[in-house]
Amino acid sequence: MKIDSVDAFYLRLPTVSDIGDGSQDALLVRVTAGGFVGWGECESAPLPTIAALVAPMSHSACHPVLDAVLGADFDSPESVGEIHRKVKAQCIDLLQADHALSGIDIALWDLLGRIEGRPIWSFFGAGNFPKTAYASQLFGDDPSATYEAAREVAGTNFKAAKFGWGPIGSGAPELDRDHVAAAREGLGANIQLLVDTGCIFEHDVERASARIACFEEFNVGWWEEPFYSGAIQEYSRLASRTRIPLAAGEGAHNADQAKHLIDYGGIRFIQVDTGRIGGISSAREVARYARERSVRYVNHTFTSNLALSASLQPCADQEGLAEIPVKTSELAVAIAGASWIPDINGHIWAPSRPGLGLDVDAKAMSPFLQDLEIRWQGQVLWRSSGL
Amino acid sequence: MKIDSVDAFYLRLPTVSDIGDGSQDALLVRVTAGGFVGWGECESAPLPTIAALVAPMSHSACHPVLDAVLGADFDSPESVGEIHRKVKAQCIDLLQADHALSGIDIALWDLLGRIEGRPIWSFFGAGNFPKTAYASQLFGDDPSATYEAAREVAGTNFKAAKFGWGPIGSGAPELDRDHVAAAREGLGANIQLLVDTGCIFEHDVERASARIACFEEFNVGWWEEPFYSGAIQEYSRLASRTRIPLAAGEGAHNADQAKHLIDYGGIRFIQVDTGRIGGISSAREVARYARERSVRYVNHTFTSNLALSASLQPCADQEGLAEIPVKTSELAVAIAGASWIPDINGHIWAPSRPGLGLDVDAKAMSPFLQDLEIRWQGQVLWRSSGL
Repeated sequence: MKIDSVDAFYLRLPTVSDIGDGSQDALLVRVTAGGFVGWGECESAPLPTIAALVAPMSHSACHPVLDAVLGADFDSPESVGEIHRKVKAQCIDLLQADHALSGIDIALWDLLGRIEGRPIWSFFGAGNFPKTAYASQLFGDDPSATYEAAREVAGTNFKAAKFGWGPIGSGAPELDRDHVAAAREGLGANIQLLVDTGCIFEHDVERASARIACFEEFNVGWWEEPFYSGAIQEYSRLASRTRIPLAAGEGAHNADQAKHLIDYGGIRFIQVDTGRIGGISSAREVARYARERSVRYVNHTFTSNLALSASLQPCADQEGLAEIPVKTSELAVAIAGASWIPDINGHIWAPSRPGLGLDVDAKAMSPFLQDLEIRWQGQVLWRSSGL
Repeated sequence: MKIDSVDAFYLRLPTVSDIGDGSQDALLVRVTAGGFVGWGECESAPLPTIAALVAPMSHSACHPVLDAVLGADFDSPESVGEIHRKVKAQCIDLLQADHALSGIDIALWDLLGRIEGRPIWSFFGAGNFPKTAYASQLFGDDPSATYEAAREVAGTNFKAAKFGWGPIGSGAPELDRDHVAAAREGLGANIQLLVDTGCIFEHDVERASARIACFEEFNVGWWEEPFYSGAIQEYSRLASRTRIPLAAGEGAHNADQAKHLIDYGGIRFIQVDTGRIGGISSAREVARYARERSVRYVNHTFTSNLALSASLQPCADQEGLAEIPVKTSELAVAIAGASWIPDINGHIWAPSRPGLGLDVDAKAMSPFLQDLEIRWQGQVLWRSSGL
């Protein structure tokens, strides 16, 4: 069969706040072939990503993404790989293409799984192992709010929790210590604490280093994203100064960049987002690469359960931690249901049903659907369609 | 003063061909402050880049690019740096932002130079040195066409020439040898030959290595882009197999990526494009970094003279080679004039007039201006304005 259609759906909350919550909008991708349907989600700015799908060709290395997808042969894992490879080759100079490809690659794997009646992870071979879920959320506006959020986690099955973004790193190191202390106290003795500083130190190793004492004092399980994803040398320098393991990778938009963090950055956890790195195909390549080098692969997910399932497929064959966003927006809930709850052992699994193993809820999503139209030289390049 | 306006102009040939000529469309940026005007050029897909300027905010790390530019204070090199830094911080998750920032950063430097009546390179200190221009063009469709193109260069002041893209690398190694032999013969004994394989080998070191014998036989001055820009490990492996210097970097969209090619890729020429890497600010950072490590910095330019001037500013303080596209489109000519011609010694210089040192020709460009409109939720997010 051939790829018959590719649609994209831009969803957004009525009000988007200037905070680190990445679940305030979403771009879903729907791909069809031979009457079957697959879904994916781009973790990206929706408008530029839609523009990448349909942008008029600039030259041979700058095609619209859809040129390599629509009408392509489709019947096997190899055909996912061939479409993926062709998008990369035709979009060398279209930067946003990697984010568009991510949602398409996920949708293609979902489609294949549904056609063959198998979960995606089963194509990768070695089974579906439990993950230790960690409750992922933003720091509170002040330490008492962080404490309350941590207390909430303490009453659940979660064995680990991560706090990130919010005020961390933007004020004095003492304020950061107050937040981390509040989180530690709120969680109690039996829940591991992870910290995410959301690139706040940019490339500044000294400013980041002023937090080492605090993070070591409270023995945080990892320190995520002190710097921008590309700041490999800065990661390496910070890693040499602290016993806290560094974690990074969500900004990587291809497998190469994640490999460089592993090879040269001194990180001990690689956290790519399937919705950015080029989909499940690229994420799977990184998961294998990391395992061979004893770096732990952990999903990055802060949006819907559709994205969560996609992010667990590449690493279903290994145990480890898994990010579960616990305070996502009503939009994320509308897309594919409420936050997953781990079992009594704190575990979650990739779904066992075909493809991504879950269904999107078109009716629930509809109120969030955005109306978008792009006109170029008098023709409609893009117009939103209904769900 | 403050940044009063940012406009972008999408220009395109009536017919765009599926070939490697990057001058078939263009995205110019115009920035104004206090009655002064600066121009820049993004080397990118115009529609997604315009979308990045105005995309509705997704969250705190995914703002539209213009949020950090419009209304910003502007009076010094430091204010260029501050705007640049703020775009990076607010657009962490907006991939296409780096390409949009590139044109804006160039326009801000042009603006500053015009306000202060100084060429941009004079802000960097150490003068304006001659460059040995190389004539940059595509391989012919067959070896005889390559030979004819090389013969044309032989009748000029150019002391070096580069052939790239076209059929190279996509057929048998013997065909590549025929093209390189034709170029070598056509140029004659006194013109250096450079080769650009346009990422054709993707990540395949073995397929690339099948060309080593040919490139060594004809002693090419460098071998540009055997692989994708991110394929640092593959660059390193190929570099260890050949005495031909490798060259790369045009795909880098931030200074970090160019530094990684220098540090880990074994390349001996770094060729960033100011229209992609984040503008003159980022390119200048790379030029300094390369010099400290004895890697040669060479501009990447394949569009207009506006882009060419922007690409020469960061390296005006050093001698070396400079890429001069010699068969660019009528659009590139309309933007800022015909291809530069080197002097009898084969030299060109960055312009000596204020800013980028040249004027864009609004009247000549007008026929190429594209009509573009983006509507979101009933409001016009973007509508093309006249030149």
